[in-house]
Amino acid sequence: MELCSGDFLHALRDTVRLPDGALTTREYVVHPGAVMVVPMLEGLSGELLLVMERQFRYPLNRVMIEFPAGKLDAGESSFHCAQRELKEETGYRATSWAHAGLLHPVIAYSTEFIDIWFARGLHPGEQHLDQGEFLDVFTATPDELMRWCRDGLVTDAKTLTAALWLQNVLSGAWQLNWKDIP
Amino acid sequence: MELCSGDFLHALRDTVRLPDGALTTREYVVHPGAVMVVPMLEGLSGELLLVMERQFRYPLNRVMIEFPAGKLDAGESSFHCAQRELKEETGYRATSWAHAGLLHPVIAYSTEFIDIWFARGLHPGEQHLDQGEFLDVFTATPDELMRWCRDGLVTDAKTLTAALWLQNVLSGAWQLNWKDIP
Repeated sequence: MELCSGDFLHALRDTVRLPDGALTTREYVVHPGAVMVVPMLEGLSGELLLVMERQFRYPLNRVMIEFPAGKLDAGESSFHCAQRELKEETGYRATSWAHAGLLHPVIAYSTEFIDIWFARGLHPGEQHLDQGEFLDVFTATPDELMRWCRDGLVTDAKTLTAALWLQNVLSGAWQLNWKDIP
Repeated sequence: MELCSGDFLHALRDTVRLPDGALTTREYVVHPGAVMVVPMLEGLSGELLLVMERQFRYPLNRVMIEFPAGKLDAGESSFHCAQRELKEETGYRATSWAHAGLLHPVIAYSTEFIDIWFARGLHPGEQHLDQGEFLDVFTATPDELMRWCRDGLVTDAKTLTAALWLQNVLSGAWQLNWKDIP
C-alpha cells in the first residue's frame, strides 16, 4: 500500500506475517538503486589522488565529503550510470573501470543499494550538473581520506565503505578486476 | 510540511532556496538516530571473536549479517542505547566501552545518524527482543568478517563501516579510548 508519494521520496507500507504468525506492518522507501565511483587520479609526481566532492546535504544541514554518486535512471545499467555520474559531477572520463562491490545504506527502511565502482585513467572535461545540484570537486590523498574517516570529517556511509575498499585494495588484500574501455 | 506519517516512517517536504536563488523542494525521512555496537568476545584460546547477528530485512527480502544496532528512545543517550541494545539483542553486558565514531547512512534523504560503539568484557545473559523482532546471534573472527565484506556477504553500510573501524583499531592505526564501567 502506498504510504507516501513525493516528487522524490516514495514509500510503501506492507502488512507482513512474522515468524511467530503475528501480523505487523513494514514501512520502507522504494529506491531505484545508485552507484558510487572512486576516481583515482595520478598526481604530478605519480602519486595517487582521489577525486572527491563537497556537497551540502539538506537533511543533515551540513556540507559532506563524498565520492561521486548518483541514482540509476530508469532502465540504466550500473556501469553506464557510473560513467555518466562521474562525467556529470566531476567532468572526468575514465579509460579503466573495476566493479568492487555493493552496499545497502539503510536496510531497515529502504530498498536502496549502491554499486561501488573504481575508475582510473582519468581525462578531464566539463561538468554537467543536474539542475539544483551544487557541489565542489577536489582531490585528496588516501592518507587524508583515512584521517578524515578516523577524525569524523567523513561520516557518509558510502564514502566510509569506499575507504574500506580503498584501504584493502591499496594494501593488496583485496583485488580488483580492471577492464579497459575504448 | 509533512509528506508522510506512518507508524515507523515519518517524512517531511521542505521548500528551500538554492544557491542560485531558485526554489525547490527537499524530501527526507526524520529519524531519531541510532547506535551500533561492535561487541568483542574472547574465545577459548584467547582469540578475538565478534558478536554479530543474522536478521531478515524486509525491504531487501533477505537475511543480512550485521552488528547489533537500534534506534534511540526519546530522550535516551547514545551510550545508554548502546548498552540497552547490546543486552536486548544479544544478552551480553559489557564492562568496557569505547566510542569510535559516527556514520550517516543515507545523507540524501534521511536525518539518521548511527553512533559507533565498541564493547568488551562481555558477560552473557538473556536476550530481550522487541515484539516482532527476530534475529540469530553468532560469533565471527575478524578475518571472516573482512572476507565477507570483500565477497559481498556483508553489504550493510553500518557493518561495513564497523569493519573499517575494526581493521584500523586492530592494526593500531586508529586508537580507541576505552572506559570501564562499574
